[in-house]
Amino acid sequence: MLEINYKHMKNKKLIALLTDFGDRGHFVGAMKGVILDIDQDIKITDISHNIEPQNILEASYTLSDTILYWPAGTIFVVVVDPGVGLGRKSLAVRTRSGHIILCPDNGILTAVMNNPGLEDVRVISEAMNRLPGSEMFHTFHGRDIFAYDAGRLATGQIDIDNIGFKMEEQIVTLPIQISTIKYKTIEGAIVKIEHPFGNLCTNIPRALIEDLEIMAGDSLSYEIFESEGLIHKGEMPFVNTFGEVNQESPLAYIDSSNRLGLAINMGNFSREYKVNAGLSWLIRIKSPD
Amino acid sequence: MLEINYKHMKNKKLIALLTDFGDRGHFVGAMKGVILDIDQDIKITDISHNIEPQNILEASYTLSDTILYWPAGTIFVVVVDPGVGLGRKSLAVRTRSGHIILCPDNGILTAVMNNPGLEDVRVISEAMNRLPGSEMFHTFHGRDIFAYDAGRLATGQIDIDNIGFKMEEQIVTLPIQISTIKYKTIEGAIVKIEHPFGNLCTNIPRALIEDLEIMAGDSLSYEIFESEGLIHKGEMPFVNTFGEVNQESPLAYIDSSNRLGLAINMGNFSREYKVNAGLSWLIRIKSPD
Amino acid sequence: MLEINYKHMKNKKLIALLTDFGDRGHFVGAMKGVILDIDQDIKITDISHNIEPQNILEASYTLSDTILYWPAGTIFVVVVDPGVGLGRKSLAVRTRSGHIILCPDNGILTAVMNNPGLEDVRVISEAMNRLPGSEMFHTFHGRDIFAYDAGRLATGQIDIDNIGFKMEEQIVTLPIQISTIKYKTIEGAIVKIEHPFGNLCTNIPRALIEDLEIMAGDSLSYEIFESEGLIHKGEMPFVNTFGEVNQESPLAYIDSSNRLGLAINMGNFSREYKVNAGLSWLIRIKSPD
Repeated sequence: MLEINYKHMKNKKLIALLTDFGDRGHFVGAMKGVILDIDQDIKITDISHNIEPQNILEASYTLSDTILYWPAGTIFVVVVDPGVGLGRKSLAVRTRSGHIILCPDNGILTAVMNNPGLEDVRVISEAMNRLPGSEMFHTFHGRDIFAYDAGRLATGQIDIDNIGFKMEEQIVTLPIQISTIKYKTIEGAIVKIEHPFGNLCTNIPRALIEDLEIMAGDSLSYEIFESEGLIHKGEMPFVNTFGEVNQESPLAYIDSSNRLGLAINMGNFSREYKVNAGLSWLIRIKSPD
Repeated sequence: MLEINYKHMKNKKLIALLTDFGDRGHFVGAMKGVILDIDQDIKITDISHNIEPQNILEASYTLSDTILYWPAGTIFVVVVDPGVGLGRKSLAVRTRSGHIILCPDNGILTAVMNNPGLEDVRVISEAMNRLPGSEMFHTFHGRDIFAYDAGRLATGQIDIDNIGFKMEEQIVTLPIQISTIKYKTIEGAIVKIEHPFGNLCTNIPRALIEDLEIMAGDSLSYEIFESEGLIHKGEMPFVNTFGEVNQESPLAYIDSSNRLGLAINMGNFSREYKVNAGLSWLIRIKSPD
Repeated sequence: MLEINYKHMKNKKLIALLTDFGDRGHFVGAMKGVILDIDQDIKITDISHNIEPQNILEASYTLSDTILYWPAGTIFVVVVDPGVGLGRKSLAVRTRSGHIILCPDNGILTAVMNNPGLEDVRVISEAMNRLPGSEMFHTFHGRDIFAYDAGRLATGQIDIDNIGFKMEEQIVTLPIQISTIKYKTIEGAIVKIEHPFGNLCTNIPRALIEDLEIMAGDSLSYEIFESEGLIHKGEMPFVNTFGEVNQESPLAYIDSSNRLGLAINMGNFSREYKVNAGLSWLIRIKSPD
């Protein structure tokens, strides 16, 4: 949906952080310190540190929903890492859009695999690419490997081509429900909640809505399941934006990531109907007759 | 209260963000990406992204309580936008203090209208000033209009003088209770809660307190109403700072924005007495006899 | 544990903020504005603004757990300040590692006193070193003194050597339980909770664990007390990292700050066992027989 502008891909120093480390502890400060100790001129920008702890799916979609807006060459450090220290691979990836991602190989690339797609995947040689003196630590690769390598990539001390061998195997992916149409019914996954508003983000792209010839003003019926149990169902208008329905009323719309969203105008859909997001949460949408 | 120093008003690239987008989703990251894709050298600073969802009054006072501390020329992107996509105007404003504000026309300028005051108000011509390719999106002007235009203003690609026509009508303002003195009673609004401490921020300026000849050490009686219902009343000393009263005791004081504040020393006034802020929340203060 | 690299100690402009001001109000924005109004080229980085309100101990350890990762010369503005406006001293400190800290004299330096240690402690002459026009405010030294002086230190307008007299007395320290070994039992304090994961951070260094010849794979028994009351006790394996135990199982490990930590793999130890941190929280660890 965006044309990526390679003209900006200079040798600039821009690092964007996305983690579940929270905004209260020493984690984020230590990562920033490590980067700035390599070169104080590196520009560090926070995307979020409040991904739900260990929620790899939320991190994956948060990354894919922002990455194409950033200049090519930006280095994304994406750390949600429940398997830290257990031998899972550390990856350095170049996307088809010219962005760099450093992350654990645990499914966090699931959403960007399709869009923008991966061009080069490297397994970081950790022995040669970790913060000197950090060998004794086993629980904080965000600082000791990912931040450190991001800083060295940003300054050109290392390059993604020599950070490690090309990955031979498949990367880990999350078993997310693919969005489909069958018999005028669209099925898809609820991939994250848009906090603090409580909007539901599905993986159903605008194209599927258009295939079913759903138009602004149509009424949609929907069912939401967790692990095959029906949690909530209802009917709502498909509109362009929140204020087209009454306050406290539900709506369906194409969200800012070009996928189907569900919301309550001036309310919180997730909280109101006790709906959450994750690999076990599905949604079915029926087109109007 | 501050002398604005125009000597700093160089053509520098400083953008400050204030939104209700939260610190967990893709919203803030997308805004920052759009700005940095225009020019990686633009300096972006976060004021807050945790304004209560849709709380325009809180955003308005948070803006007015910080703006004069920033260098003239700073571009404030202020987005609390429940009416997004419904035809409300997008504004670009120059204040009397030489600051730039980009925001929806929904009341968010209420507090800065008086202080520092508005010098030039433009209605952004959205067709010519939105992120290319974003026409299909109706719910995220923070990214598609305000961040994009802030980036272009910061680099000088556009100027506030040619971003749109001068606003002819009045801007939208919130119907906030003006602070007054009648018969030795001061009445005013509770405009926000100072999280995380739970202090009450009123719109009663220091001058009204001085008019009533209230002095440090005086005892004040007060009543707090929501929609004309009495919620809480009591008596408390008027002092300079928190630690002048016992722990867990209430106090009144002139806060860091030069208005009357109410707090509990080492406690949380808002939570303790179930007092909140907003257009329906009023406070009455009686001077000592 | 880290070798401090003095080669980076140029006259660069790097300020790191650590406060309990929260991420919602005008406090942080006002501090940043004051700094950038001194010089827009100063680089400001957030460590955290979500230290628990008034929790000086948490701030102290959060500072000490990050400071050595930052380049020497970095100016840390650390403000948790329940005694603001009451005459407690404002300090400007140079550590043995070449870092600068601006903070109230209220115990917030307790953890850095030992590591990295303090080299020069100055009492800020507030009359000469506060934001012009701020004399009428008594509740926000974070803005009016600490941010203002950090900006002037960053630009070289003032120097720590002339910001005030050398401190003659002892600085305030928190009465924290020293970690000890007696009869094969290690005793120490629980100094903070690692949010959002709920891990317990103790002040028991790796060296004490090694002194007791505790090895990866050993089973440890532990007791946790608040004010001498037993809150929780149990047994858990001492391992290198979280995923070595089953999901929802507890573990002990050397954390990323080189001290003993307690956690639940994919869980929240603090919430599960209602254990908190602070001066009254103690832990006893028994080595295997």
